[in-house]
Amino acid sequence: MAKKYAMGIDFGSLSARALAVDVQTGEEVGSACLDYAHGVMDRALPQGPGLPPDWALQHPQDYLTCLAQVIPGALKAAGIGAEDIVGVGLDFTACTMLPLDRAGDPLCFDPAYAHNPHAYVKLWKHHAAQSQADRLNAVAQARGEAFLSRYGGKVSSEWMIPKIWQILEEDPALYQAAHRFMEAGDWIVLRLTGQERRSAGLAGYKALWDKAQGYPSPDFFGALDPRLAHVVEDKLRGPVCPLGARAGEITPAAARLTGLKPGTPVAVCNVDAHVSMPTAGPAEPGDLLMVMGTSVCHIALSRERVEVPGMSGRVEDGVIPGWMGYEANQVMGDHYNWLVDYLFPQDYARQAQARGMDAHALLSEKAQALLPGQSGLLALDWWNGNRSVLVDGQLSGLMLGMTLKTRPEEMYRALIEATAFGSRVIHETFEKSGIPIVRLAACGGIAQKNPLVMQIYADVLGREIGVVRSAQAPALGSAMHGAVAAGKAGGGYDHIGQAAAAMGGLLPVIYRPDPQRSHIYSQLYREYLLLHDYFGRGANPVMKRLKAIQRQVHPQDP
Amino acid sequence: MAKKYAMGIDFGSLSARALAVDVQTGEEVGSACLDYAHGVMDRALPQGPGLPPDWALQHPQDYLTCLAQVIPGALKAAGIGAEDIVGVGLDFTACTMLPLDRAGDPLCFDPAYAHNPHAYVKLWKHHAAQSQADRLNAVAQARGEAFLSRYGGKVSSEWMIPKIWQILEEDPALYQAAHRFMEAGDWIVLRLTGQERRSAGLAGYKALWDKAQGYPSPDFFGALDPRLAHVVEDKLRGPVCPLGARAGEITPAAARLTGLKPGTPVAVCNVDAHVSMPTAGPAEPGDLLMVMGTSVCHIALSRERVEVPGMSGRVEDGVIPGWMGYEANQVMGDHYNWLVDYLFPQDYARQAQARGMDAHALLSEKAQALLPGQSGLLALDWWNGNRSVLVDGQLSGLMLGMTLKTRPEEMYRALIEATAFGSRVIHETFEKSGIPIVRLAACGGIAQKNPLVMQIYADVLGREIGVVRSAQAPALGSAMHGAVAAGKAGGGYDHIGQAAAAMGGLLPVIYRPDPQRSHIYSQLYREYLLLHDYFGRGANPVMKRLKAIQRQVHPQDP
Repeated sequence: MAKKYAMGIDFGSLSARALAVDVQTGEEVGSACLDYAHGVMDRALPQGPGLPPDWALQHPQDYLTCLAQVIPGALKAAGIGAEDIVGVGLDFTACTMLPLDRAGDPLCFDPAYAHNPHAYVKLWKHHAAQSQADRLNAVAQARGEAFLSRYGGKVSSEWMIPKIWQILEEDPALYQAAHRFMEAGDWIVLRLTGQERRSAGLAGYKALWDKAQGYPSPDFFGALDPRLAHVVEDKLRGPVCPLGARAGEITPAAARLTGLKPGTPVAVCNVDAHVSMPTAGPAEPGDLLMVMGTSVCHIALSRERVEVPGMSGRVEDGVIPGWMGYEANQVMGDHYNWLVDYLFPQDYARQAQARGMDAHALLSEKAQALLPGQSGLLALDWWNGNRSVLVDGQLSGLMLGMTLKTRPEEMYRALIEATAFGSRVIHETFEKSGIPIVRLAACGGIAQKNPLVMQIYADVLGREIGVVRSAQAPALGSAMHGAVAAGKAGGGYDHIGQAAAAMGGLLPVIYRPDPQRSHIYSQLYREYLLLHDYFGRGANPVMKRLKAIQRQVHPQDP
Repeated sequence: MAKKYAMGIDFGSLSARALAVDVQTGEEVGSACLDYAHGVMDRALPQGPGLPPDWALQHPQDYLTCLAQVIPGALKAAGIGAEDIVGVGLDFTACTMLPLDRAGDPLCFDPAYAHNPHAYVKLWKHHAAQSQADRLNAVAQARGEAFLSRYGGKVSSEWMIPKIWQILEEDPALYQAAHRFMEAGDWIVLRLTGQERRSAGLAGYKALWDKAQGYPSPDFFGALDPRLAHVVEDKLRGPVCPLGARAGEITPAAARLTGLKPGTPVAVCNVDAHVSMPTAGPAEPGDLLMVMGTSVCHIALSRERVEVPGMSGRVEDGVIPGWMGYEANQVMGDHYNWLVDYLFPQDYARQAQARGMDAHALLSEKAQALLPGQSGLLALDWWNGNRSVLVDGQLSGLMLGMTLKTRPEEMYRALIEATAFGSRVIHETFEKSGIPIVRLAACGGIAQKNPLVMQIYADVLGREIGVVRSAQAPALGSAMHGAVAAGKAGGGYDHIGQAAAAMGGLLPVIYRPDPQRSHIYSQLYREYLLLHDYFGRGANPVMKRLKAIQRQVHPQDP
């Protein structure tokens, strides 16, 4: 029997990757990756205007360009043909949303809107809808909306409704002109299949949708703003479909764009983090997977339907059908990248170049030589706000303990430690709420490539951590879902657990906590918690006040 | 009548400078400068061993090398001969102290002690005697020692007695071997004149000496440690002499070293900051001079003998004979240098190089384009502890408000603002205590060269600031004192006020506060004060606990 392959496409924050995977063995036979030409637009649009603080946009053309490049690239790298692909799955950062016209084209493709920032994709880390999120939370709380409890009591400014409401308030004409708003991932499915199929994962975690309850009521939306009362039927139309379901098949137009065969099954979109859960092997309640990249997403499975304060979401069937999927989020590698991007000194750059290392490798090597507590530094990992458990985009970064001797590698290590402390807050909150963590695994570039980070995590968390075998976990997870969309009859699988058993698994390496280092980190963690609560829970809202002053003095942009 | 000149020698933290000045006009006719070959030794001695955190040493040979170079260099640059010099004055960082043998040679010159860190010069910013300072303060408080009130209620770990006590406790044999301990500046006077003449300024501000009371009692020293009871007569012997007094004359040996004429009058040493006071012109009560360099020293003159909490010292006749000299201190330019030295990124380094600018000029240009409050950053200027008004070397730096978009120039500006806020705390403490500030002036490299810093200071302080004309104020001030040591009969002056009137003065530029920027800064200053008190006054002593953990984990050095 000829080998069969599934194709997974992973849309990250900066690039998209396609991966062809052997459906029987999980062998990754070929991949291709391409950066988004416009990257993250956080200072200005390509031809202006400038953007206010907290904005983060993307250009949807970049996604299409990637589709046209990475799918043929992966097939070519694999040395296989489009006819060998039984199914396609994809995952996307979320909530990464955009306004579309009646034809399903992004509004920013229309020259009339090309200079309008609201016509572009709002990336997940666009934080300018905080005012809307605050008011949404206040109204939902006042009305005792049941959905709030599924989201740890707080809706994030990163999600669909605050972002839509920001558009409505700041540019009502554009809101009117938008035939609908979609997650960028659902829009790609629409582009590939011609079918408007919203993902239960995306809708569940980011748009307040629930398997049993659906979306919040028009009454609730109307209480936010009368013009929003019918936002669901007006702007979020289209069926919400379960994960692994077949959204449709590659259309002839999509075939021309991607080189895939018309008729190839395409799965509904997954959230880029959650899609990795099955790559660790068949998932069970008690599992927690940390998907480590620019952010770290903590995904916990449970049989229990409990309320976890400050979690990003609890969605039934939202990760693996059959269980509750709990999600918590945290900015991670973006902190380390910030230091490298903006504060990596020239003499270190020369050292790295001379030794053929990248900046992260050099800083990791230098940071590795330090003991816990040796630098005297402590940081709060809020460079992009706090997403769990405080759920507050208006928080900002903090570092203390600097002296005139403080070196970049000490700051680098302090940032790593800060993210690990933030993860410990999340895990402790899960456990206190009745979601025990039995098995801890990690995937993503950092888990694969940075033993320093992983050891610090093991030491700070005081737990063993396994690492997913695949270096391209989201794309592999997407390919698994593509195999499920194909079904057993189509050369794939009928259930994600079967795909996970065949195609997933862990590396032999296990990171184990060192008792001495863990002991020091427990002391530092107590200090972290004190600062976390002081700055994060209202005792001194200086970070919010600084952002208010910043808005007050910043030259007026759109 | 032939022109007459005075020579001033300024020993800073990193280099020494000699300046020849026309006694009649203040014209600076020639100068020479040389860096200390060993700089600041804060990680290790030249041939080892490594140094623990908080240490900062210097090598006394560097000072002699500088004397031999900069004095002939200044004469040569001026095109004058040694016979044209009517008097020599010098100033030195303080308390910068060292142990000497019976012959007056530094113990570290003896090969037996060359590997012993305690045998070297402890630079003013050596902070490893905090435990001794803490216990000294506790004992002094318990005994109700009157001297405490002259020092804002707290003796700094930077001063003479804690540094001596650290040596006694950590290396009693070396303490025994030390025939005496001297300020490095007094030691240079000894080298030049053969006379052991301690400076009333150095002893008053750094060694608890008072014009009327002398040193604290043997009872007090004995209460610290019985072995210290006779520290004054054993280790601090030698008369304390008023500022401007003639310490002696250049010896034949010193003439061979420096190229000066034997018999040239030499003034007693000044503190490097205070010596600048007369360079702004004749000084009066109500004047406050900010001497801006790696640190900023605030020197206020008053008729009143009041207690100012957390000041570094009140010394009668300690700055200008006839008035109370109040001193407060703060780390300043070291903060900006830290960013440039350790976190100046490669692309900025390229820009600076391409444009022929130094790093500070480039960062200042970029920071200049920002509005107050625009970056959203706020910092506490404690990278080297807080010297006034908290007087706590165990405090450390803090910055908050960082986001993933935070750029180096934003951090640079935040560090400048933090030092300005720290200065405002000091000035407000002076005024609340009954020392009104009538006239504010600044001198030092930053005052001369960085209009961004000066404008931020004017905006934050809400006051006009004048700038001393001389770009080499300490050396000019030292030269003025050299002229006073010569006396009118010897071609100089009988009083420092006469020297100041002839040789000092301000630039025409005045920095004036902008009401709008001042308004924003007042908001930010309130936030600064909240953090200042939270971290600095005991509510959350996390910085101290981090330093305690740091000491606990750091591999054991001497």
